[in-house]
Amino acid sequence: MIDDIELSCSSCGARQAFGLHALRCSDCGEALEFVAPPLRDQVLEPAWASGCADSSGVVGGVWRYRDLLAPDFDESAIARVRMGEGGSPLLRALRLGNTVGCEDLWLKDESRNPTGSFKDRGTAVAVAVLSAAGIESIGTVSTGNMARSVAAYAARAGLRAKVWVGATTPAEKLAPIAVHGADLVRIDAPYGQIYETSLIWGAENGVVFVNSDSALRVEGQKTIAYEIAEQSVEQPFDWFLVPTSSGGNFSAIGKGFSEVVEWGLVERSPRLVAVQAEGCSPIASAWENGMDVPMEVGSARTVAGAISNPTPPSGARALRWARETGGLAVKVTDDEILTAQVEIATSTGRFVQPAAAAGLAGLQQLIRSGTIGPEDRVGILLTGAGPNAAPPPLPIPEPVKLSDL
Amino acid sequence: MIDDIELSCSSCGARQAFGLHALRCSDCGEALEFVAPPLRDQVLEPAWASGCADSSGVVGGVWRYRDLLAPDFDESAIARVRMGEGGSPLLRALRLGNTVGCEDLWLKDESRNPTGSFKDRGTAVAVAVLSAAGIESIGTVSTGNMARSVAAYAARAGLRAKVWVGATTPAEKLAPIAVHGADLVRIDAPYGQIYETSLIWGAENGVVFVNSDSALRVEGQKTIAYEIAEQSVEQPFDWFLVPTSSGGNFSAIGKGFSEVVEWGLVERSPRLVAVQAEGCSPIASAWENGMDVPMEVGSARTVAGAISNPTPPSGARALRWARETGGLAVKVTDDEILTAQVEIATSTGRFVQPAAAAGLAGLQQLIRSGTIGPEDRVGILLTGAGPNAAPPPLPIPEPVKLSDL
Repeated sequence: MIDDIELSCSSCGARQAFGLHALRCSDCGEALEFVAPPLRDQVLEPAWASGCADSSGVVGGVWRYRDLLAPDFDESAIARVRMGEGGSPLLRALRLGNTVGCEDLWLKDESRNPTGSFKDRGTAVAVAVLSAAGIESIGTVSTGNMARSVAAYAARAGLRAKVWVGATTPAEKLAPIAVHGADLVRIDAPYGQIYETSLIWGAENGVVFVNSDSALRVEGQKTIAYEIAEQSVEQPFDWFLVPTSSGGNFSAIGKGFSEVVEWGLVERSPRLVAVQAEGCSPIASAWENGMDVPMEVGSARTVAGAISNPTPPSGARALRWARETGGLAVKVTDDEILTAQVEIATSTGRFVQPAAAAGLAGLQQLIRSGTIGPEDRVGILLTGAGPNAAPPPLPIPEPVKLSDL
Repeated sequence: MIDDIELSCSSCGARQAFGLHALRCSDCGEALEFVAPPLRDQVLEPAWASGCADSSGVVGGVWRYRDLLAPDFDESAIARVRMGEGGSPLLRALRLGNTVGCEDLWLKDESRNPTGSFKDRGTAVAVAVLSAAGIESIGTVSTGNMARSVAAYAARAGLRAKVWVGATTPAEKLAPIAVHGADLVRIDAPYGQIYETSLIWGAENGVVFVNSDSALRVEGQKTIAYEIAEQSVEQPFDWFLVPTSSGGNFSAIGKGFSEVVEWGLVERSPRLVAVQAEGCSPIASAWENGMDVPMEVGSARTVAGAISNPTPPSGARALRWARETGGLAVKVTDDEILTAQVEIATSTGRFVQPAAAAGLAGLQQLIRSGTIGPEDRVGILLTGAGPNAAPPPLPIPEPVKLSDL
């Protein structure tokens, strides 16, 4: 059972039993995570480099690694949620690489997840565990991607979902959430306050909030690193750039790479680069200033809504993973982000949301500064799909007649 | 080379050499298709039931079956286009199945393709072949999904793309096309006239139009049937429902199943059901009236834009496949389609476009009429993703304050 599994604080290392509503360390207040299970030889036999993972995808997706995740899952728990989460392709970006001066450039395309973003991996794991434990109501606090993901997986598993979003979340993001029948609540308050309230309100009202820093979510997200490692097993990446908001996904990827290194499956982790928007850069600004915890910033002002969390609950953890992997954190402007979005669309065929394009903008900056060299093997995480975000302004032509052709 | 490959007329059987601009039989005017290659034992060893296909997906996608496609592909041709096309999951719809009275219900989720629809399979194959043959400009005539797919794959491969759409194609469908840098032309004329003009104009202007009935496209689309056969190899489907517009995809699926049956890989094809919208049902109305060719209908009037072709170029072919597999063609109302769209979203977690939801509406009709029984194993093709279509009207709540919670 899930209650028997121990969590460890990502900052002070204190051990704590798993609790449905306890996301943070009771000693220091930092995020809790599952202790990696010991690696069993029989687990790896089918699950590693078996030929069912290639650049086009990974068969089984998240569940290929089920025995490497801390919770136990029975078949029926997985069947209840499974929508084909994870298993995303790793795409060579040959033309784009030539343009930006980085020839060995790859895109890990998380926009291909069931609801269009990386969030589905963590949601699927969390909903599988919670549904098997008899939980009937789940919730989340989100700026968009996670809300859509939780609404969809709750619908699939037959759970009720409370989705709390800020009052400024744009209308086009709300429809794909509401269509799944979630109880959508728009709250006129800063993100940090909504997040804090959700933890208290959820515990009082029997709603388990699966927010960005949930240990269950991080356990699902770490499979991104497993997949990258397996898809590049012959030649590991030097760098991986990850658009970063709350820091939960970045930390999960750090944790995933550290596990496959510890197990001896790969020699090293890529250097992980957290990319933020200049208009909301608590993690990147902290990095610049040599701080261990996110810097205080004002309200978010960026086109990249999916990376606009000014008070990232896993910011300290993300800073630690950037440091431990020899990576860093950078910030990019909205203009750079929108230009990158169009460059990705016109030279790789992928139409991603502005937040996802921030990774390319970050790469261009690090190439200009000489931090990343032209021979380096570089990956960018495309975090989410485009259609739910406002597209860049585009010329839509007037209709013509056949005789005009 | 592609020029050496023979095509056969889907209706009269006449043989004809492959030609870049010759989509139709020079004898009878019907659609041409590739003759299935002879099955070589060594081809099947890695490519069939090897454990790299399961309900979550199929590793390699379309290219898993590259040796079963008529054209030859070298690695660099595939690398130039590859975005992870095909390999889509086959999802058990347990809760939905219980609701509609068909417990063994599955969704083949083509909305998971790179640009959100089944079109990507055919586009990828066509662009790989044409790009390797030195073609620099391609085109398509489309109501939306195919336009987006061609624009994206042309961008990836570095080809120019002419995308011709009708003047009434809604604005929200145009942005994800234009973002890839395609030359988007909105034409104020009926679909059938635009289609006919494209063939002449393309030949005169050196632009290869890859329309719905292109033999290259059909060759890519047939992999849907290969995947379904492989993903259900232990217990084949009794029925498969396919939302149908031009009839090209339906015919490709018929062709694909007939090939795996001929090769002895499975015993039988599912009965294939073409589902159309009442407001545009040239194929379903022809079926009702026992006709061999599509019935003449007026302009399309349906919310399901992706199945609104009133003059389907592969209509006769689709009718033949419905007959040959023991299937049929049905039509459903817009109200049934929109209700089905919400049922799919609230009970399976998938948000698909109205056209894709037509398959469920068709199933409900055939269950009511007793044609499909409660014990039958049934699949529905989810043809395309939701976010580019207008969502059903949804209640978006007013913002509240934290103190109101």
